[in-house]
Amino acid sequence: MGLAVGVDVGGTKIAAGVVDESGTIIDRTRVPSPADDPEQLRRTITELAVELAGRHDVVAVGVGAAGFVNKDRNALFFSAHVQWGTDRVDDILQDSLGMPVTVENDGNAAAWAEYTYGAGKGVPDQLMVALGTGIGGGLILGGEIYRGGHGVAAEIGHLGLVPRGRLCECGRQGCFEEYASGSSLQRMAREAAADGSAPALLAAAGGDPQAVTGAQVTELAQKGEPEALALFAALAEPLGLGIATLVAILDPTVVVLGGGVSEAGELLLDPTRPALERELSGRGHRPPPELRLAALGNDAGLIGAADLARRAAG
Amino acid sequence: MGLAVGVDVGGTKIAAGVVDESGTIIDRTRVPSPADDPEQLRRTITELAVELAGRHDVVAVGVGAAGFVNKDRNALFFSAHVQWGTDRVDDILQDSLGMPVTVENDGNAAAWAEYTYGAGKGVPDQLMVALGTGIGGGLILGGEIYRGGHGVAAEIGHLGLVPRGRLCECGRQGCFEEYASGSSLQRMAREAAADGSAPALLAAAGGDPQAVTGAQVTELAQKGEPEALALFAALAEPLGLGIATLVAILDPTVVVLGGGVSEAGELLLDPTRPALERELSGRGHRPPPELRLAALGNDAGLIGAADLARRAAG
Repeated sequence: MGLAVGVDVGGTKIAAGVVDESGTIIDRTRVPSPADDPEQLRRTITELAVELAGRHDVVAVGVGAAGFVNKDRNALFFSAHVQWGTDRVDDILQDSLGMPVTVENDGNAAAWAEYTYGAGKGVPDQLMVALGTGIGGGLILGGEIYRGGHGVAAEIGHLGLVPRGRLCECGRQGCFEEYASGSSLQRMAREAAADGSAPALLAAAGGDPQAVTGAQVTELAQKGEPEALALFAALAEPLGLGIATLVAILDPTVVVLGGGVSEAGELLLDPTRPALERELSGRGHRPPPELRLAALGNDAGLIGAADLARRAAG
Repeated sequence: MGLAVGVDVGGTKIAAGVVDESGTIIDRTRVPSPADDPEQLRRTITELAVELAGRHDVVAVGVGAAGFVNKDRNALFFSAHVQWGTDRVDDILQDSLGMPVTVENDGNAAAWAEYTYGAGKGVPDQLMVALGTGIGGGLILGGEIYRGGHGVAAEIGHLGLVPRGRLCECGRQGCFEEYASGSSLQRMAREAAADGSAPALLAAAGGDPQAVTGAQVTELAQKGEPEALALFAALAEPLGLGIATLVAILDPTVVVLGGGVSEAGELLLDPTRPALERELSGRGHRPPPELRLAALGNDAGLIGAADLARRAAG
């Protein structure tokens, strides 16, 4: 089946790579994202793909996009951080590249990569929960990505966690990602640094509470600092709640935790396991899901987009 | 393919019927449910099936059960209101009947019936939300029942609606069905009757707040009684919240509202539509689902169980 290009389009940068059939990225490049200009965005993606296809024998291009991708996987209804417009994405690229192009939601692409090559390899019923700026997701159901009736399933960051809770960018209140994302961890850490309950974090940020980052929380937690461990424990509560809802609805065998926060590893898993267990409906009367850490890190979206494009072309 | 027997096993009665290929019940019977005795329960189901199979040329038997049915569809992990035990259900029945027996979660069976013959006929991505004593559900994803990794998906009554909210029978707090089920409507109605805010309902119940029923609420609402309409409006809020979570995760084309409460028809739909719309993540940027009323009423579980058994046997 050969090689495929994966393009991961984010709000600040576009990463592209050539992916082989074992899921390995054998060549890669990245450029800043022209996130405000749909035409320039398409040109940039094309240039990246042309560059990589010039160096390798590529059969297809997969584009991973944060946003609502339509069911035909060739356009976006909406993206919060990148101006895609609603015009088709695939036709311009296909004309320039002379090969099939597929657009995939980035959470779906990452979930597919973890299912095909990563932490959930071969497990037909699994969910990806990606804890980054927001909470992304992907549903692998019966060994396939489930995209919903219109293409926009798996927006798990927007399951309702708290009625009339924090306002979310999506327009509703109380969404999961307002409580259990990387941004939530950072917000809690800054609040703790500001109110005097996290002096070590405040020191790590040079005395400015607004300079505290999630990475600093992870670093201090790795050193066993109680105030940092307490923040992971606090994040684990809403995280367990949200995953329990996903489990009640979908009964996955495995839940893969990805995104930047998952780099904390066991520091994240340790408090999340019991929090989920407490919130599991019918606990003790049903097989629980297994929580695993993602294996492919930030490359998951790119690898998944490439693999899906190759399969669609094959 | 011929006829199949469907058996709907509830906590108080067992209904059985012979279902033809158009989804019509051409013969039926019902008996009290021996809900406390797994062996007697199996004998009773067998007797019902033998009786019906004696009168018709039947090819399979489908048993619909409220509870956690395993993925092989031959035993239950757990049922709250019927003692099934964890022994296989199908083998005893198969030996007695000489034909294949399939066990299906009752929510799945009802969803399948609405998809195959009812309100969601032919729509490949749809959810069933059945508002009864609790909230049952079924997921039709890509034209098939989705059963999860272990068989217990679609327990939508137990998605988390309110953190640390009302205690649910399932062992956790704040479940959807504690706020938006038929029992919730009845509880709210009784509270309103008790605190003086629903004098017409109190009168309808002979002056005893604890005698108020959901059916009385529906009756008064049909007459335009504001206190009864207010109760449907109050139910619609958590119902919209919960459905919005299902939509964020699964992006269905159609959501079918079933169960006893759905007999209120437009009285239920009218306030639920705007409540759902308000809670929809990314509203205005995505195609919303269509809310429909179930078409098959209490027969959906029986019809679906029969149809699924016939297909499994065919």
